[in-house]
Amino acid sequence: MLDNIQIVMVNTTHSGNIGAAARAMKNMGLSRLVLVDPKADINEEAIQRSSRAEDILHQAVITDTLEEAIADCGFVVGTSARSRNIPWPLLNPRECATKVAQAAGQNSRIALVFGRESSGLTNEELHLCHAHVHIPTDENFSSLNVSQAIQVMCYEMRLAAISEGGDQSSADHPIWGVDWDYELASHAELNGMLQHMEQTMVDIGFLDPNTPKQTMARMRRLYQRAGMDKMEINIMRGMFSAVQRQQASLKTAESAEQDGDSH
Amino acid sequence: MLDNIQIVMVNTTHSGNIGAAARAMKNMGLSRLVLVDPKADINEEAIQRSSRAEDILHQAVITDTLEEAIADCGFVVGTSARSRNIPWPLLNPRECATKVAQAAGQNSRIALVFGRESSGLTNEELHLCHAHVHIPTDENFSSLNVSQAIQVMCYEMRLAAISEGGDQSSADHPIWGVDWDYELASHAELNGMLQHMEQTMVDIGFLDPNTPKQTMARMRRLYQRAGMDKMEINIMRGMFSAVQRQQASLKTAESAEQDGDSH
Repeated sequence: MLDNIQIVMVNTTHSGNIGAAARAMKNMGLSRLVLVDPKADINEEAIQRSSRAEDILHQAVITDTLEEAIADCGFVVGTSARSRNIPWPLLNPRECATKVAQAAGQNSRIALVFGRESSGLTNEELHLCHAHVHIPTDENFSSLNVSQAIQVMCYEMRLAAISEGGDQSSADHPIWGVDWDYELASHAELNGMLQHMEQTMVDIGFLDPNTPKQTMARMRRLYQRAGMDKMEINIMRGMFSAVQRQQASLKTAESAEQDGDSH
Repeated sequence: MLDNIQIVMVNTTHSGNIGAAARAMKNMGLSRLVLVDPKADINEEAIQRSSRAEDILHQAVITDTLEEAIADCGFVVGTSARSRNIPWPLLNPRECATKVAQAAGQNSRIALVFGRESSGLTNEELHLCHAHVHIPTDENFSSLNVSQAIQVMCYEMRLAAISEGGDQSSADHPIWGVDWDYELASHAELNGMLQHMEQTMVDIGFLDPNTPKQTMARMRRLYQRAGMDKMEINIMRGMFSAVQRQQASLKTAESAEQDGDSH
């Protein structure tokens, strides 16, 4: 299970936090660190704070965007302190660990995404996540250091990994309770379907291309929540392609009609 | 929570089982019994087996079809001994009780559906359920009496009701972890959306009306699994209506084109 999990840090501004995160990960048996457009170097301070977890720092993957970082992940969880304008599935850390164990039981890659020290994750970034996780804190003092948040989450991941097979809701128990017939779709495949859906909605005049936000955010939330498999993605995309072919013949027919009028 | 739950018995053939079910329900604090096209009467034997739960028998609702019985329910669970040709979300009784408590926390009506003494529920009936529940039994002796199965499920419902508010995953904790902005769609609303989807797929030539089964079963599974809210239903239906309007104008344009040719 733990090998399926990558810790994703977005726009981290302090080298020490990157080092401390690497140490927290290694303490709990995780090794995959992804840094999205980091604003701090992996410097001497980072290595010193990592204690003897330099190997994780050396192997850390650096990407330009969060999209790249999570492209091959089947389950993506973002840490969130605030509640959102559109409500999103929200887990506590233990519930999150159970879901991660279940997704890992289906050989999915999992991403746990942590935001900026100053401002966390943006709404756009949080909307890319299947679910959000909130670490319970004193509401009068709720802002955790990012490496501490990573420590708490990695600890819960480890507890779940240890209990694997131990209980019904753990990793030997697939995410839908039965062995599924198709693999979970990756984030990239889900994105492809949602882009196809948005383009189709625009083509047929259902969606205003200038204000797609709320509708598409709700559609993304719906399909991410369901945890789509690859066959379900294929069916949806097949339907959208059929709609687009129809739209094309409509345009042809209309222009043909105009030619007819011009006789 | 318990008041939100209805026990649905399909084509029950023994009056004694209906009476015993009523008693089991009352023992655990449930009261809503629905009989779908019962093959046995509420007779002296039923009343005697119900002990002092005649009130449940007298108030029992009788319907012709399972669809009618679950029309206003937001969460429907079917008991299943067998695994299916298409895998479906499968819960154990305790997991089921947690989900029921969460749905009840959102004021949804819940249906627990039990099949025939002889043959259980059909695939068609099981496909109407958001999830299936399997009561663990000795695999060499796995067939429970229907009233015993109802007893086990009502017992788990009662445990969940007692622990309400007691733990994170119970009824004070909404099904998606946050207070949602729209109500869960009812079974009838979900069905309306799926019928609209199927008709649209047929209109645009994506779905062969003679063999829609597998595709539509997968779509039903997808949207039931997601637990759609009313707004999501509206968005989907709005999209299908737009596709159908487009299809209509295509037909018009084509006939106009033919008129043009006929000049």
